[in-house]
Amino acid sequence: MPDLSFPEHIITVPGPVDLSNYPTDLGAETKKALKEALEKDRERISELQETLYAESGRSLLLIFQAMDAAGKDSCIRHVMSGVNPQGCQVHSFKAPNSEELAHDFLWRHAKAVPPKGMIGIHNRSHYEEVLVVKVHPEYLIGQRIPGITSPEKADARFWKERYASIAAFETHLARQGVVIMKFYLHMGREAQKERLLERMKEPGKHWKFNLGDIAERALWDTYRCAYQDAIGATSAEHAPWYIVPADDQWESRAIVGRLIREKLEAMDLQMPTLSAKEKEDLKAAKVLLERE
Amino acid sequence: MPDLSFPEHIITVPGPVDLSNYPTDLGAETKKALKEALEKDRERISELQETLYAESGRSLLLIFQAMDAAGKDSCIRHVMSGVNPQGCQVHSFKAPNSEELAHDFLWRHAKAVPPKGMIGIHNRSHYEEVLVVKVHPEYLIGQRIPGITSPEKADARFWKERYASIAAFETHLARQGVVIMKFYLHMGREAQKERLLERMKEPGKHWKFNLGDIAERALWDTYRCAYQDAIGATSAEHAPWYIVPADDQWESRAIVGRLIREKLEAMDLQMPTLSAKEKEDLKAAKVLLERE
Repeated sequence: MPDLSFPEHIITVPGPVDLSNYPTDLGAETKKALKEALEKDRERISELQETLYAESGRSLLLIFQAMDAAGKDSCIRHVMSGVNPQGCQVHSFKAPNSEELAHDFLWRHAKAVPPKGMIGIHNRSHYEEVLVVKVHPEYLIGQRIPGITSPEKADARFWKERYASIAAFETHLARQGVVIMKFYLHMGREAQKERLLERMKEPGKHWKFNLGDIAERALWDTYRCAYQDAIGATSAEHAPWYIVPADDQWESRAIVGRLIREKLEAMDLQMPTLSAKEKEDLKAAKVLLERE
Repeated sequence: MPDLSFPEHIITVPGPVDLSNYPTDLGAETKKALKEALEKDRERISELQETLYAESGRSLLLIFQAMDAAGKDSCIRHVMSGVNPQGCQVHSFKAPNSEELAHDFLWRHAKAVPPKGMIGIHNRSHYEEVLVVKVHPEYLIGQRIPGITSPEKADARFWKERYASIAAFETHLARQGVVIMKFYLHMGREAQKERLLERMKEPGKHWKFNLGDIAERALWDTYRCAYQDAIGATSAEHAPWYIVPADDQWESRAIVGRLIREKLEAMDLQMPTLSAKEKEDLKAAKVLLERE
């Protein structure tokens, strides 16, 4: 089994974060070993998900955030494709529509929290509200927030309150039985360049290319600061951030798979047990069926 | 105009509350004077609602809580019936269904928060989670909350966390432009007895009678404590509780009408103004139409 352990990349307490202290590549394994490890974890996740569904007391919320082209979509596809779709919902959050903009910024995300027994995957999430919206505060105008009449009005206190809203929301969910994992796919600047160039070169990847990605890439450092601030302000024991090295996509997939499998195992999921009365009913039903 | 002022009954800071300090009847006015006052406030609320809708920057969330037969439904009907239904949504929360029970306890209430420009009325609300559920902790079992395997497991800390979840939710909403008013229709025990007897006597009110109301009435003191605790724990400048005397239904309606009208006036609602460009466009459109 490849060694993909990196406990120091799990942030469970709030505090300053410097992403340059975290590797974007562990560089240890061959693609083959990583794929094999992921395959095993995927099978185990699939089994554990059935117990989660049967137990129906908790749910698992997986949040994926990353810079463009870091591989969120393919990571979700590779890690989760073995899971029964009936027990798994993916929500991809794009730019908010008018109904969503007419509500508070957590509204559309709160609606999409997985119910008990389910795994919910948020491909982008409420964190976009302190990432892309922080980098482009002009987007706030469309949200018509009292006092925010121009982008400059969104000061440090404003963002602090947003972090507080997010942290309180996650604390509430955790108390109610939502187990939360937040993945930041951590890709270096050079790796992003290569992936964007790849999209331009390969006709099969052209549909993924978006001129806006280049404009956003120019804001790399601003995004990086926004990520650091968001991760630092919202890490918690019940809602940890995982800074996953993502220069090598098979590596990041294998790591995410391992982390989800470990989390599900640590949840100590239990199949529901029958009461004495239910056991008797079951016995009686068996007798009836056999007599038919 | 009747004198319905009672500023001391607006609770805006958290702290212990003793409901016996609050009157259930102001006893000052004739029904006629109260009806006239309400009629005037209703007209004004209707006008102000149009501006709220046009401004579309904030919303108004009105929460109604009370013991059985205190007159929530009729209060909502009398105070709000003049308002354009397109700008006003009423949500009556009954016992949660299975989809709702599979989510955290704020889920169905958060979904129903009014969008910008709207008045949202919650006839019962997320407060039932710290009222009826606190009085009947056995209801918690259906919520399948980790650690709450029996009603006794819901200790003081559990309820404190529920209040904290509610307070954080309301703080978040307020920051986003949701103006919150929480009405507790404060009726005395004797008045409830009279109203329940009335329901039994008048065939036209039989449909409102529910044998369960009598069983709940036996828990009067327990409910009273739950109300005191909830009000004390969740009052805030941005989400005040109004303890409205409710022995006399016309009195409570007139008071609620006045409070809503005053709040809407204090919001300093503004009709959207046209930019110079929009004014020019309007002028041009007018010329075009006239030429037709």
